[in-house]
Amino acid sequence: MTKPPTLLFADAKGGSSACEIRHRGKPLPIKIGYVGGGSRGWAPMLMMDLALCPFFRGEVALYDLDPAAAALNVRYGNLIQSGAASPSNWRYRAARSLADALRGCDFVFLSIQPGPIGFMRHDLEIPARYGVYQSVGDTVGPGGIVRGFRSARIYRGFAEGIAEHAPRAWVLNFTNPMSVCTRTLHRVFPGIKAYGCCHEVFSTQLMLGRLYAHYLRRPFPNRAEVRVNVLGINHFTWVDRASCRGVDLLPLFRRYMEKPDGIRLYPEWRDMGPRQLARVQRHFRLTFELARHFGLLPAAGTRHLAEFVPWFLHSPESGREWGFRMIPWASRAERWKQAPRRFARQLAGKEPVEIRPSNEEYLNQMAALAGLTTLVTNVNLPNRGQMEGVPRDRVVETNARFSRDRVLPLASGRLPPALDAWVNLHASNQEDVVEAALGGDEELGFRAFASDPLVHRLPLDRARKMFGEMLRATRFRF
Amino acid sequence: MTKPPTLLFADAKGGSSACEIRHRGKPLPIKIGYVGGGSRGWAPMLMMDLALCPFFRGEVALYDLDPAAAALNVRYGNLIQSGAASPSNWRYRAARSLADALRGCDFVFLSIQPGPIGFMRHDLEIPARYGVYQSVGDTVGPGGIVRGFRSARIYRGFAEGIAEHAPRAWVLNFTNPMSVCTRTLHRVFPGIKAYGCCHEVFSTQLMLGRLYAHYLRRPFPNRAEVRVNVLGINHFTWVDRASCRGVDLLPLFRRYMEKPDGIRLYPEWRDMGPRQLARVQRHFRLTFELARHFGLLPAAGTRHLAEFVPWFLHSPESGREWGFRMIPWASRAERWKQAPRRFARQLAGKEPVEIRPSNEEYLNQMAALAGLTTLVTNVNLPNRGQMEGVPRDRVVETNARFSRDRVLPLASGRLPPALDAWVNLHASNQEDVVEAALGGDEELGFRAFASDPLVHRLPLDRARKMFGEMLRATRFRF
Amino acid sequence: MTKPPTLLFADAKGGSSACEIRHRGKPLPIKIGYVGGGSRGWAPMLMMDLALCPFFRGEVALYDLDPAAAALNVRYGNLIQSGAASPSNWRYRAARSLADALRGCDFVFLSIQPGPIGFMRHDLEIPARYGVYQSVGDTVGPGGIVRGFRSARIYRGFAEGIAEHAPRAWVLNFTNPMSVCTRTLHRVFPGIKAYGCCHEVFSTQLMLGRLYAHYLRRPFPNRAEVRVNVLGINHFTWVDRASCRGVDLLPLFRRYMEKPDGIRLYPEWRDMGPRQLARVQRHFRLTFELARHFGLLPAAGTRHLAEFVPWFLHSPESGREWGFRMIPWASRAERWKQAPRRFARQLAGKEPVEIRPSNEEYLNQMAALAGLTTLVTNVNLPNRGQMEGVPRDRVVETNARFSRDRVLPLASGRLPPALDAWVNLHASNQEDVVEAALGGDEELGFRAFASDPLVHRLPLDRARKMFGEMLRATRFRF
Amino acid sequence: MTKPPTLLFADAKGGSSACEIRHRGKPLPIKIGYVGGGSRGWAPMLMMDLALCPFFRGEVALYDLDPAAAALNVRYGNLIQSGAASPSNWRYRAARSLADALRGCDFVFLSIQPGPIGFMRHDLEIPARYGVYQSVGDTVGPGGIVRGFRSARIYRGFAEGIAEHAPRAWVLNFTNPMSVCTRTLHRVFPGIKAYGCCHEVFSTQLMLGRLYAHYLRRPFPNRAEVRVNVLGINHFTWVDRASCRGVDLLPLFRRYMEKPDGIRLYPEWRDMGPRQLARVQRHFRLTFELARHFGLLPAAGTRHLAEFVPWFLHSPESGREWGFRMIPWASRAERWKQAPRRFARQLAGKEPVEIRPSNEEYLNQMAALAGLTTLVTNVNLPNRGQMEGVPRDRVVETNARFSRDRVLPLASGRLPPALDAWVNLHASNQEDVVEAALGGDEELGFRAFASDPLVHRLPLDRARKMFGEMLRATRFRF
Repeated sequence: MTKPPTLLFADAKGGSSACEIRHRGKPLPIKIGYVGGGSRGWAPMLMMDLALCPFFRGEVALYDLDPAAAALNVRYGNLIQSGAASPSNWRYRAARSLADALRGCDFVFLSIQPGPIGFMRHDLEIPARYGVYQSVGDTVGPGGIVRGFRSARIYRGFAEGIAEHAPRAWVLNFTNPMSVCTRTLHRVFPGIKAYGCCHEVFSTQLMLGRLYAHYLRRPFPNRAEVRVNVLGINHFTWVDRASCRGVDLLPLFRRYMEKPDGIRLYPEWRDMGPRQLARVQRHFRLTFELARHFGLLPAAGTRHLAEFVPWFLHSPESGREWGFRMIPWASRAERWKQAPRRFARQLAGKEPVEIRPSNEEYLNQMAALAGLTTLVTNVNLPNRGQMEGVPRDRVVETNARFSRDRVLPLASGRLPPALDAWVNLHASNQEDVVEAALGGDEELGFRAFASDPLVHRLPLDRARKMFGEMLRATRFRF
Repeated sequence: MTKPPTLLFADAKGGSSACEIRHRGKPLPIKIGYVGGGSRGWAPMLMMDLALCPFFRGEVALYDLDPAAAALNVRYGNLIQSGAASPSNWRYRAARSLADALRGCDFVFLSIQPGPIGFMRHDLEIPARYGVYQSVGDTVGPGGIVRGFRSARIYRGFAEGIAEHAPRAWVLNFTNPMSVCTRTLHRVFPGIKAYGCCHEVFSTQLMLGRLYAHYLRRPFPNRAEVRVNVLGINHFTWVDRASCRGVDLLPLFRRYMEKPDGIRLYPEWRDMGPRQLARVQRHFRLTFELARHFGLLPAAGTRHLAEFVPWFLHSPESGREWGFRMIPWASRAERWKQAPRRFARQLAGKEPVEIRPSNEEYLNQMAALAGLTTLVTNVNLPNRGQMEGVPRDRVVETNARFSRDRVLPLASGRLPPALDAWVNLHASNQEDVVEAALGGDEELGFRAFASDPLVHRLPLDRARKMFGEMLRATRFRF
Repeated sequence: MTKPPTLLFADAKGGSSACEIRHRGKPLPIKIGYVGGGSRGWAPMLMMDLALCPFFRGEVALYDLDPAAAALNVRYGNLIQSGAASPSNWRYRAARSLADALRGCDFVFLSIQPGPIGFMRHDLEIPARYGVYQSVGDTVGPGGIVRGFRSARIYRGFAEGIAEHAPRAWVLNFTNPMSVCTRTLHRVFPGIKAYGCCHEVFSTQLMLGRLYAHYLRRPFPNRAEVRVNVLGINHFTWVDRASCRGVDLLPLFRRYMEKPDGIRLYPEWRDMGPRQLARVQRHFRLTFELARHFGLLPAAGTRHLAEFVPWFLHSPESGREWGFRMIPWASRAERWKQAPRRFARQLAGKEPVEIRPSNEEYLNQMAALAGLTTLVTNVNLPNRGQMEGVPRDRVVETNARFSRDRVLPLASGRLPPALDAWVNLHASNQEDVVEAALGGDEELGFRAFASDPLVHRLPLDRARKMFGEMLRATRFRF
Repeated sequence: MTKPPTLLFADAKGGSSACEIRHRGKPLPIKIGYVGGGSRGWAPMLMMDLALCPFFRGEVALYDLDPAAAALNVRYGNLIQSGAASPSNWRYRAARSLADALRGCDFVFLSIQPGPIGFMRHDLEIPARYGVYQSVGDTVGPGGIVRGFRSARIYRGFAEGIAEHAPRAWVLNFTNPMSVCTRTLHRVFPGIKAYGCCHEVFSTQLMLGRLYAHYLRRPFPNRAEVRVNVLGINHFTWVDRASCRGVDLLPLFRRYMEKPDGIRLYPEWRDMGPRQLARVQRHFRLTFELARHFGLLPAAGTRHLAEFVPWFLHSPESGREWGFRMIPWASRAERWKQAPRRFARQLAGKEPVEIRPSNEEYLNQMAALAGLTTLVTNVNLPNRGQMEGVPRDRVVETNARFSRDRVLPLASGRLPPALDAWVNLHASNQEDVVEAALGGDEELGFRAFASDPLVHRLPLDRARKMFGEMLRATRFRF
């Protein structure tokens, strides 16, 4: 006989600490449609956040091409709700179709794997055979571009579905390549209320908060207190202003960059020996290099940043040199396989379910869109003036203000010359990727591919050969 | 023997309720340079707000072309500080020169009368003799344009002074014509940190809050809870979105517009008889007319709005027809004379000084710029993408986010066609007014003048005659 | 028994003198579709030009809603071709339908009357009853706007027809309002190869040529030798540079403007007495007034220019004051009636047919598009960079270069401030007229209407009443 | 005793055949200031063209940092004029200073070597040591960028001199890097009337003319009859339309590209054996590759084109592979040394001077600017709308129309995506090169350097090392 599952609830108020939500009275009923509802990371995280949320309640319809994955998540979600301790009331169900998931929704979550997990292997390993090394391969680089073709095709269907079944819903995208997915949604359904969420900037805020605490000898501030101005495109975002409680943080960063030795920035570094400390500090090498080169602070994971410029990924060892791990496909696949196993153990009562809030912003954003608060945070949106120097409609990442049924980006200024040029190269490429995939224009697709900085090292005919091989391996036809 | 002055302190926390300022510890010391420090309205109001402010303390240097007026205000300010009840500590002093007022400033206030008060008589009465009637005459219309020439000349000096003596100070402009003054500052000193403050939108927020309370039978919300998206140029601002506690307010406004009869919107209307009520409700006639015509809500006083389009001011009686008073010069002059007399009575102890907080936003803005909070409110700034459809650099009014040492406007969208054209006509005119005044180009000045909608009714030669007469009367030479 | 018609052929080389066409070998065969083929002015003129054209031959299909009018023109055209003297060979036929006229075309001519001629009476006379006087009423002003609604509706059909039946043909528009018609074509079928032709600038070239001949005591130059840079929108075009054989002409124009007295500019003025001369010279009064006001040379008929600004048309007598005739509807209608009668007389041999070349440019343009020459001349096209300060896509009039299958406008600079604002007011209005008519948006239509400078003098409710009356009289429904 | 020099005059009408100049009467007197007057290529060519020019006469002042070189050219120029056969009358003199050369000029020629010829050795050989190979090194690539720094500094002086001494002269630039030099002139003196001349497109016109003659079996047309639409930046220009006598030429080019074998395009290929023919045809390999990749025709020498993208210059042998010669520094230096020796021989009567017209356009352009004709040809100018998708002010190369005292570019459309991105990368880099050199901003200079596609192959620290080495070798200090 199966042991009943164990639920351990964290003590949390719902939403991260980025904004205060003063909602008196009953939770608002909402409907969420989750496309990619078999998701092994984002979906369970959302379930926990919802379980701890005092201001919303309602229904979540999970839709996935893999019905078994969605069904498993439904069971998992309902399990979490079975605990008396949940402050919130949610019903999970599997949707029979995209239309079924979308109909009547207030919010749509998009979080999918564009194509089988095995495709990612080709995205990474074929280029490696040509001497083109990628540290992630899901945003730019040959892998990111080919993944972009796949995503644009799939997202066209989502946009059409949303236009038909949920034209007034707010759509949150979590899938990479973020810019390509978000652009496709807006291009196919110009009236869509869609934006892209990414948490890469948060780590930079945390680091800046640590620097504040370290140099000013004060307690570590809440992340939301670390205010940054964000400019760029997803995974290649930059901070040109940062402050906390009235203190300018960029001078602190420069001070740290000049002399990081021995500073035990994070709690988990406290007890490290000098060699181990040196090793973890290597993690900042690329951040420092880019900060020195461009004169402002890069605010994304270094393994992402490295793929946007042609100077760093020269060999399979480049990651080690720059202090990040170049995730091999096998470890991604392994993580992919493990998730359902843990769920099964938890459903069988063999492992407790710890229900903790995430550090994501989506619940705050949704609260603001419902009119419960206002919020300023960084999101991905088509350019409508928020970033000077980038053409209209290209998807950029800047701060935006969320209020009732509206997201307005802040007119955030412009990047310094040269950096601006790199951003535009990629933004232009992303436009072409969408156009090529939707218009079935293979030549345009290849032009975008050949323009990617990681592909620059190849002669054009080699690039074309690699391109063909990648398309065939991932069964993409223009 | 003089009776000691009586100080009555209101119970207030400093700053309006637009944002919460959590400042622990001692007040921050700041220096304010007040240009136009003999001001009879804004300066005393600032003094009271400062007296009640728990998070700042410091010095205010008052500079005025009329040293006696500045001296009187210094006495008045120090009188207010003399009371033990003041939570805050301020020293007022008269500045010997513009440079003396500006040097070392953190904040500069600009609030002047551009030329003798008597000039305003010419601004209003000469056009009236030509059959051109103005309800205010300080923003657009022939009076606003000629006042703009004067202001641009004076503000060139301010901008040069700030560039030399206080290049890093934040500059708050309160003088009309707002757009022309703000544009001049940025044009002469491109690095200036200047914006223009106007409270016209606040009344619209209050009205919307009243509508919320009336139709939803709930308590009247705080003004800051009434969130509006603002688009336009100063005194010709428009709201295309409004919400309060999750409720969309524009449908309520339309409902009111269709059937306002008998609704006692404001507390002071409660006890009115039906005829009196009908009379005060006339005040909304022009607001409704413009809302119907352009399809969104005008958010400025109707006597300002009426001057931006050619359809309303056909006779000296037009104001009565549309429910606003066309302020004659005499009453302005009278108010101007009364202020110092009251101060004298108060300084002599013959009248108590009631120290109450204003409803203005400047203290909140300054707190945010000092890093004590963040704030979103409407201000006037050169266009950097916040308003689509208006050329770069023209001064527009939209919401902006204030944070430490930075004001970033929100990319607020665009006005609907036709309205957009009127805004651009005036924005273009304002650019020409600045250019003509700074460049000494009389022909360009007249071209701007003749393009003003209120001047359209005159043949060109009559317009030119009126132009010459106004320039001579106000002693302006190109 | 009918006398055979008499054909008198002028000696002409085909095409105006604007460019030299060196075509050796046989004439190229082309097909022209003429929509509005019953036209009483443009169609016969084209027939004569074609008859004298040595480089083209072919077929002209005339299509008209009034088949009798088209049939009459077919007879007339074939009559002209019957003369042995014609250097060119053309076949005229009536088209059964729009599709029939368009199919297989190389060139499409659009030259229609938008609605019955009687509608024009309402366009002019209803506003006059409201005190709004128009000198032409076919471009801007209340009449031009309401005519614009009708035209946009009709032109939608033309654009759709061209997209289906002649997508690669070059389309020449001659109908007013020129900007609205041309914009509609491009908006409905973005791939269309359409531009608008107008000869208003030619008169300015002729006047400048006369000034050259007069002041330099040289022979009168060919019009094409008078090179002008053109900027503006149709019928409100401006010249900021002009030269002839290396001589700058604008100083000559200013000299003339300052002291025109007694200068007998045109041959037909030679024998006039001083009073008659003074009277014909009045014709330039408005040109001079605008040239003085804006600082550059207006290049369109004064009766057109007068309607674009609010300063001139104050009474039915304004035309007399400014030296132009305010064409009453009756005289237009009369001219309309007379044309077919003359044709009938000519077909009956009672009046000879004089076949003379026109001064129009279309044949040169078509020769250039066919690759036989290149040509620079002024045309109406959506803005693609030719005019700074005007948004993309608005139809502007500038010089363009014609070459094989391509028309590229010259990047012609920008208008000075203030003039720029008037152009943009109208360009914005024209955009709204098209949008309102195609989208069936009456409110937008009225907003454009009320923004027209000639309507500014009316209170908004009077303007709305006039609007409704005009729509009803011309049976236009949104 | 010295033999008198021998002058052999070609029979020529002056000006190339690009436009017909009908100038009756006496030649116009002009003054030309030639900066870089010791030039060994352009200056003697100009002298010959002037000697054959029937419509201008006057004075040429030669200024050079190397007075001996200028003096030699003065002697050479006056020698040419000594012949009775010259149809034109010119006086050459050495200018004592830049000011002396510029004062009173109608036209200024700028044609210099930016720095000693030996610097070019470093521009080429230092990068080669880092594995970065350049085929020319004077436009982009590390050599082009460092040369750009030098040029911008020198051109600042020229722009200031022109602003002071010849503000109304037309300035023709011939120096590379063309875009950087032209941009500097406009940036330092915004009122300058300067453009850049380059003949690279002419070869493409010649090739297209050859294809026309070959496939249509007609006589070879005049180059000016081959009409092309040009888009791009100097040395990376593209043709998207081409026609000759009404025939579309791009299909002919594609036909040739698909099957070039055995076609003896040029007269000098006529007698080649098959192997030799194959070898010269290799010259088109890169043209074809780029045409296939981007879908339109590249119109510059392949050795220039190869440097703008990262795919071709992988080794010192790359030139051979693609059919062009990678000019070693030694051969440039040798050519540099030979020129004065030939002059000396000619002056000594040991070698005859053959006076032949060049194929350049400058005389036609000058004739048009003097009002003697009009002309459409390709030039380099700051973007004012001629090229969509490139920011304002960046120097682009398109067709422009020359008329009296004016050059107006044609609004030439936009490049297809991807190509547009490469153009913008370089245009942005060129902006930064100017900014860095004029502002003394080494970091910005390095950012531009590292963004160059040829530098992409280097890790950032290697790039920085190379940068420092190149600056030191060419004695450039920020």
